[in-house]
Amino acid sequence: MKKIIYADNAATTKLDIDAFEAMKPYLLNEYGNASQPYSFSRAPKKALKEAREMIASCINAEPEEIYFTSGGTESDNWAIKGTVFSDSNKKDVITSAIEHHAVLRSCEDIEKLGYHVSYLMPDFQGVISSEVLKQAITPNTKLVSIMLSNNEIGTIEPIKSLADISHESGVLFHTDAVQSIGHIEVDVKALGVDMLSASAHKFNGPKGIGFLYIKNGIKIFPLLSGGSQEKSQRAGTENIASIIAMAIALKKNCDNIKENQKHIIGLEKDLIYELKKSKINFVRNGSNSTVPGNISVSFPGFEGETILHRLDLMGIEVSTGSACDSINTQISHVLRAIQLEEKTAKGTIRISLSKDNTKEDVLEIAKAIKKIIIV
Amino acid sequence: MKKIIYADNAATTKLDIDAFEAMKPYLLNEYGNASQPYSFSRAPKKALKEAREMIASCINAEPEEIYFTSGGTESDNWAIKGTVFSDSNKKDVITSAIEHHAVLRSCEDIEKLGYHVSYLMPDFQGVISSEVLKQAITPNTKLVSIMLSNNEIGTIEPIKSLADISHESGVLFHTDAVQSIGHIEVDVKALGVDMLSASAHKFNGPKGIGFLYIKNGIKIFPLLSGGSQEKSQRAGTENIASIIAMAIALKKNCDNIKENQKHIIGLEKDLIYELKKSKINFVRNGSNSTVPGNISVSFPGFEGETILHRLDLMGIEVSTGSACDSINTQISHVLRAIQLEEKTAKGTIRISLSKDNTKEDVLEIAKAIKKIIIV
Repeated sequence: MKKIIYADNAATTKLDIDAFEAMKPYLLNEYGNASQPYSFSRAPKKALKEAREMIASCINAEPEEIYFTSGGTESDNWAIKGTVFSDSNKKDVITSAIEHHAVLRSCEDIEKLGYHVSYLMPDFQGVISSEVLKQAITPNTKLVSIMLSNNEIGTIEPIKSLADISHESGVLFHTDAVQSIGHIEVDVKALGVDMLSASAHKFNGPKGIGFLYIKNGIKIFPLLSGGSQEKSQRAGTENIASIIAMAIALKKNCDNIKENQKHIIGLEKDLIYELKKSKINFVRNGSNSTVPGNISVSFPGFEGETILHRLDLMGIEVSTGSACDSINTQISHVLRAIQLEEKTAKGTIRISLSKDNTKEDVLEIAKAIKKIIIV
Repeated sequence: MKKIIYADNAATTKLDIDAFEAMKPYLLNEYGNASQPYSFSRAPKKALKEAREMIASCINAEPEEIYFTSGGTESDNWAIKGTVFSDSNKKDVITSAIEHHAVLRSCEDIEKLGYHVSYLMPDFQGVISSEVLKQAITPNTKLVSIMLSNNEIGTIEPIKSLADISHESGVLFHTDAVQSIGHIEVDVKALGVDMLSASAHKFNGPKGIGFLYIKNGIKIFPLLSGGSQEKSQRAGTENIASIIAMAIALKKNCDNIKENQKHIIGLEKDLIYELKKSKINFVRNGSNSTVPGNISVSFPGFEGETILHRLDLMGIEVSTGSACDSINTQISHVLRAIQLEEKTAKGTIRISLSKDNTKEDVLEIAKAIKKIIIV
């Protein structure tokens, strides 16, 4: 395999090697069904309990508030559909126009089933303001769902204020924290959220596993019903190997979050400095408070897709926007919502750095961009 | 780890070593997001395509009819909820009283949302007859869901006739084949089903992955919405490592299905012979046509749970019924539905053998049972 510079960590991350090692015994030997009562299931049962405790401690939750899912998409779908299905009286949901498609399309699904959804508009930096939310809440509002940080432009939302406003009107608050967990400090009690979605492969865990935090006392409808796993709230034989790997990957990222942030913010600065130095015409999207490593840059007059493919030829992997939208080459819903001029929006790429990237990587990326843009 | 005799293969199976080896490169190096357009995603994208083709060929489906899910539970939930949500006119579903909880609780969920479900009763052997189904279909019936084989007693249902009867009335037909795939030959075209659920960990694949077959031309509502993966029918970053492992495990089981069946049926006969020889009072549940290796035996006057725990102490792992019901020690819904006398039902255990079990294993199991029952 030729050497590449991987700078698409918001799409997915490399599996942590300790997380991989932790999976192995549960894939190979301790394969017992964790829900069985015999001794062969003791080890997986114990691993499940420990993983739940580790994850809870990383976000200041209680272990019984962590429900394992197949990933961020399931968590988002569950939070939204599970909440509206659990109450036949209140039929309104509020979300934002810049959510991940897992939230937006869940909302479209419930609209087709007769529910009503309002889509809040952000400001030019991608921030959803408390004022805008306040005006949208009605006596019929059951749920507000706003992401903790945006996957395309990195903007961190004022979740504490948004959750407080929702609670003042007796409305539940969910946040999609898929792009945030493991990258910025997340404390569910400080944020005051009722539900929070996470996906392991965004923080060096395996693909196909995630969790939904549901605050004690909040009752929502199950999305995947069946066996009595996860206190009968999420059925299906427990995927122990992936669950334990997720816990280890999260713990490692949370334990090192300050050093990782420092390193990644340093790389961000180096990259922006190099681009500025070369006098390339570009804008950086997002607010002053973005997730470390998420760098959305627009080169007016260029095509993001062309830049991506030319970088790829040079061994550098970046994204044009959301990974889930790679089939769709139009301007993304996020860039539209922050009202980026069409000419600018079209020339957007997302460079997303991780703790594994180096200064050499970003110098290489800057050099490659210069080659593409200046020639 | 002390040596155990694992005889609970209907709860979960040992991961095939070739399947594990196939996961490794996608866990460790080829971790690119399969939905991204750059070269680093070429290998996972190719693996995804090949896995889909391998799985399709094992069940005589077309590759585009295979949709990857997080397992049997999700597949069942999706088939049922996705079908009823896609049609606002027809609100009735027919299933059987002996389905897996993933089907039964999905049905309860839709009942809470205003749909109507009929639960067909089997005969004493656990067979759902075509006559019973015919009488239950109404002009309002949208879907019939009957399992291919039962997880507790092994009975194989007459799916071809049941699907034909459904189609005569323009009703869609889904089958939960979680206990069947990899163990008996499954040909979706010969069965004539519209949807079919499968779970990898029941056929030596990893936990947390499965698929739903949806016949070309059938449109159902997505359960997990979001990104455009799986033709926008099932969102979420593709779990390539588990998907490729599932494909390899299934292919291996299907390629060796005849030899495996022969070996396992031989073991079954040995076990039953040993029990009969010892003059123990027992009944075997199920029909004359059961999934090889699934042996439900009842010892009237005994407690299944006690037998399970005493076998466990002797290093033998079996089940009392459904793995998903281990918290619940009452008589299972399946044993109730086949109208087993309470005294008999209470003394039931399920021994489920795999290709890895040996003649020594079953002689050991028979010896242990004799010790428990005769003393």
